Amino acid sequence: MKKNILVIPGDGIGPEVTTWGKAALEKIAEIFGHEFVFEEALMGHAAIEVTGEPLPDETLEKARQSDAILFGAIGHAKYDNDPSLKVRPEQGLLKIRKELGLFANLRPILLFDELLQASSIKPEILRGTDILFFRELTGDVYFGEKIRSEDRNTASDLMIYHRYEVERIAHKAYQAAQQRNKRLCSVDKANVLESSRLWRETVQEIAKQYPDVETEHMFIDNAAMQLIKNPKKFDVVLTANLFGDILTDEASQIAGSMGMLASASVGESTGFFEPIHGSAHDIAGKDLANPLASILSAALMLEIGFGLKEEAKLLVDTIDQVLKEGFRTHDIADQNTNRFKVLGTAEMGKLVLK
Amino acid sequence: MKKNILVIPGDGIGPEVTTWGKAALEKIAEIFGHEFVFEEALMGHAAIEVTGEPLPDETLEKARQSDAILFGAIGHAKYDNDPSLKVRPEQGLLKIRKELGLFANLRPILLFDELLQASSIKPEILRGTDILFFRELTGDVYFGEKIRSEDRNTASDLMIYHRYEVERIAHKAYQAAQQRNKRLCSVDKANVLESSRLWRETVQEIAKQYPDVETEHMFIDNAAMQLIKNPKKFDVVLTANLFGDILTDEASQIAGSMGMLASASVGESTGFFEPIHGSAHDIAGKDLANPLASILSAALMLEIGFGLKEEAKLLVDTIDQVLKEGFRTHDIADQNTNRFKVLGTAEMGKLVLK
Ligand SMILES: CC(C)[C@H](C(=O)O)[C@@H](O)C(=O)O
Ligand SMILES: CC(C)[C@H](C(=O)O)[C@@H](O)C(=O)O
Repeated sequence: MKKNILVIPGDGIGPEVTTWGKAALEKIAEIFGHEFVFEEALMGHAAIEVTGEPLPDETLEKARQSDAILFGAIGHAKYDNDPSLKVRPEQGLLKIRKELGLFANLRPILLFDELLQASSIKPEILRGTDILFFRELTGDVYFGEKIRSEDRNTASDLMIYHRYEVERIAHKAYQAAQQRNKRLCSVDKANVLESSRLWRETVQEIAKQYPDVETEHMFIDNAAMQLIKNPKKFDVVLTANLFGDILTDEASQIAGSMGMLASASVGESTGFFEPIHGSAHDIAGKDLANPLASILSAALMLEIGFGLKEEAKLLVDTIDQVLKEGFRTHDIADQNTNRFKVLGTAEMGKLVLK
Repeated sequence: MKKNILVIPGDGIGPEVTTWGKAALEKIAEIFGHEFVFEEALMGHAAIEVTGEPLPDETLEKARQSDAILFGAIGHAKYDNDPSLKVRPEQGLLKIRKELGLFANLRPILLFDELLQASSIKPEILRGTDILFFRELTGDVYFGEKIRSEDRNTASDLMIYHRYEVERIAHKAYQAAQQRNKRLCSVDKANVLESSRLWRETVQEIAKQYPDVETEHMFIDNAAMQLIKNPKKFDVVLTANLFGDILTDEASQIAGSMGMLASASVGESTGFFEPIHGSAHDIAGKDLANPLASILSAALMLEIGFGLKEEAKLLVDTIDQVLKEGFRTHDIADQNTNRFKVLGTAEMGKLVLK
């Protein structure tokens, strides 16, 4: 199989983790005899520094021409500390999601048995958890009009959904539920928000087309609680952009660490694969980041992007093996024991490749 | 001390838990020689049934005349299942918050040692946690304009903040932080939302007036994760209406159960005291609800509303004692052991009063 892959390392720990996601893809190509052709491009703060734009036209052009994109992370302390800056790294990520029509963000909560202890949640609560999030990615308050009044004393963002936006992601989520445990939980705030009432109404309609799937509707506040109270009760979770952002970060604690979770954004064409962790500027360049989420992003690219199941499985199994042998990065090590061999980003990356 | 207290039982389990919050206040009055005069009023589904309105004028009038309000819960399955209904119970709660100017919702995460095991989170992660949430309560996407297009295919809610709204709650939160551990974490989504950038900017300004308090800014997605990863790192958390709704429900798992958390809404005049749990219609009328959150709401009324510290402490200590003696309601009992004496709503209420 021949594929063109665009690598966008981005900001913070993005470059150092993406190195290993890319290396994993190269290794897979070598083992299975595929031809993966790589290009690189800038986005975020890294792109602003060079071009003044968070998403240069050249990057978008390359993205459109590629078969899949491996992305690192975005964001920089400079902008976080100065809310008044007009050009911001995150605009690059939002724009590429919109331009490529990446309306469905899949975030599987993949639990490695070896990491059950790494979570702040009790292992007996976690064991057996298997959740697949469908987060809507190109609508909601992320993309609604943003207004700052002239006197700068009032600011607003429009939380807005169109029926077709809910429909298309609901179909994807229901189809996935049919392949899994046939349960779908749709999360909204329909007791307060009109956009959530449209969301709920639409999901109720679509649900009729999937009578084999059991549907539940939950308010976001309750979902944020249930997710850690009893994560096993969830199978597929379908939710809006903002609520999905919050719930999936929270759910990363189920998997032991944000450093272990990958996501796939799909929609109209090219798929986009990235860790769910952010740019973590505080640990950038210190060889402390966990490269496994980027390698798992590569695995998602193989499976969801290219349909290469066996290749993806090899990556996941290898990570499982490395964890079984007691190797850990800092984020998933247990500070209180000497049970683990704690590795830096590069050492962990190399080990998985071996 | 003489006080007029309005009791609004509301919907679902509201009436059965509020009975015990009210009884606790009566008992305190008797012990300490206060005079509490009670009135009752309707709100939510209970009010719609009788008057057609979720917040009848009469209720609002009584509320304005009272010194404090003890509220139960709101909501009903009928409306949750039919997003198209125009008159909804929750409108009553939102309207009374707005009308009484209850802009600051205080939600203390009170940890009873005895309940450390009741949480899904590991006890060693929880021990020592002491968080006070300040949730903004009369702004945000809750109150911004709601629009449904004529063809009903587009729906929106305006997420909006004015600088003065952020300022007044920030001052309250900073003042509380000065009395506590002098750390304040402000939660927003300033990397995406303009209203969050106004929020962050404003908090940065106010922070300068409280140099003795250490300020941190955190994105909501990260906060949802950190809250369960390392709850001890938080002291005062300051956040917007929607984010506060989500985070505090999530935080209820820290306290072992939603059934243990009370909240105080304050602002321009009369204080409003309520459990953070909802109407839980699935268990309503079954003598399964936990009355402790309502009794703790009464304690908050005594402390925050009337400045009666000793009286409030007696209630909290009594609950602590009852838990130490091994009594539990269903939500905080451990199904796997016979260690606890599991009580119904009424038995638990009576026991605390004794
Ligand atoms: C960086 C930020 C804009 C982004 C988001 O909120 O979508 C991130 O948190 C994510 O989840 O991908
Ligand atoms: C019932 C609902 C409108 C309410 C809210 O979202 O504010 C509740 O969840 C709360 O937290 O008090």
